[in-house]
Amino acid sequence: MLITSRNNDLIKKVKSLNDKKFRNQYNQFLIEGDKMINEAIKEKIKIEYIFIEEGYDWKNSEIDDSKIINVSSSVMEVLSSLKNSPGVLAVAEKKDVPGIESIKLGDEELFLILDNVQDPGNIGTIIRTADSIGLKYIFIKEGSCDIYNPKVLRSTMGSIFRVECVTFSDNNKLIQKLKSNNIKIYATNLNTSKSIYDVDFKNSAIIVGNESNGVSEELLNLAEEQIKIPMRGNTESLNVAIATSIILYEAFRQFI
Amino acid sequence: MLITSRNNDLIKKVKSLNDKKFRNQYNQFLIEGDKMINEAIKEKIKIEYIFIEEGYDWKNSEIDDSKIINVSSSVMEVLSSLKNSPGVLAVAEKKDVPGIESIKLGDEELFLILDNVQDPGNIGTIIRTADSIGLKYIFIKEGSCDIYNPKVLRSTMGSIFRVECVTFSDNNKLIQKLKSNNIKIYATNLNTSKSIYDVDFKNSAIIVGNESNGVSEELLNLAEEQIKIPMRGNTESLNVAIATSIILYEAFRQFI
Repeated sequence: MLITSRNNDLIKKVKSLNDKKFRNQYNQFLIEGDKMINEAIKEKIKIEYIFIEEGYDWKNSEIDDSKIINVSSSVMEVLSSLKNSPGVLAVAEKKDVPGIESIKLGDEELFLILDNVQDPGNIGTIIRTADSIGLKYIFIKEGSCDIYNPKVLRSTMGSIFRVECVTFSDNNKLIQKLKSNNIKIYATNLNTSKSIYDVDFKNSAIIVGNESNGVSEELLNLAEEQIKIPMRGNTESLNVAIATSIILYEAFRQFI
Repeated sequence: MLITSRNNDLIKKVKSLNDKKFRNQYNQFLIEGDKMINEAIKEKIKIEYIFIEEGYDWKNSEIDDSKIINVSSSVMEVLSSLKNSPGVLAVAEKKDVPGIESIKLGDEELFLILDNVQDPGNIGTIIRTADSIGLKYIFIKEGSCDIYNPKVLRSTMGSIFRVECVTFSDNNKLIQKLKSNNIKIYATNLNTSKSIYDVDFKNSAIIVGNESNGVSEELLNLAEEQIKIPMRGNTESLNVAIATSIILYEAFRQFI
């Protein structure tokens, strides 16, 4: 099968997955490019379709031929969020993520909470760094950047398929759940004095906040302690992905 | 004075500063937006012109009225690299940076060497993080992303005006200069076993490399030791700005 018309109903539906609204409606998202698609398949993400641009050579033994649809360059252009065609693009089902109530925290020793991080590159890079220390859960406050945004996906370099990103809406419910499991809650705040280097991160959750406004008042109050990265010089703050990574690796350094 | 024509000779020249070639030719660069311009003025960057968009309110007592030029929205649109107008845009002189030979290393305890980092966001964020620990010098290999690229500038959040970014072309010359000052050279390499947490960073220089290829063979060989950030899980690597920041803060942690 070769689709050459941008007005094809399936093409219109798949194109709509570039919008969060339709990703939520269909519970699906797009994966662009060979490398990310292979990562997704390796991590058992359910693939519904693979769109291959005419002339692009792609094969993966895990994917049944019935899922493959060939499209013209003009159609690929309209499906992809990229300036240059990725050659291959998949429609995948979002992972089933349990709600806060039913999550088993198990014996994880570190958790991350993202409170309204908005930039796709930041959130993607944070997921990638979290994965690099084997973090299992990231709790993401409703209203943060959608993790299935194509830019987020790209920045994760595939880590999105390994880390469980759990969306939550009720601050209290999440914090109580963590506290009842003896997890200590640390919130980052530029206006505090406690250094991350004076903290024992064993069995803890770290809250980082919005690019401009930091962690919300409510979550600051729910945390047991507020912490900051000590700095020297004239900078006011660090990029949020950088700050998060520095803290995650300080915790990791303490564990290894 | 109000300029409304995009074909005005001065406007054409200023517009050309969006290109590295002309930034080099004129030894000037553009600064976009109120916040960055005020940072530049505070750090004594020489300003040649300030372009203010009609209807935008801007004033800084350090800037002589003769340097101010009012422009129409259509002209501002053509000058700025941003989708949304910054309101105000400055033409500034590049900082005078001494060559490797004449730099006085003084009693700095940590140096950073960037070997062919290409992404503007990465290089800008690295400069911002370096500034946050008071690093004075970053040595940047010729062929890396131009630090006066508008995207780099934005990502530095003003740190570009405080950190000395010294471009170099000859690996040997730089490394010999550092070694003769008893600076130990560490190069990052994913394929090594020495952990950054087993390194004493006092009086050292850290080399980080290109997004895809890492540090060049030549610099790897010139370094006294190769080091890596330990990881756990399935990620292959970290974003270069993240990796650099983690190492810089590990060094900083050891000093404070």
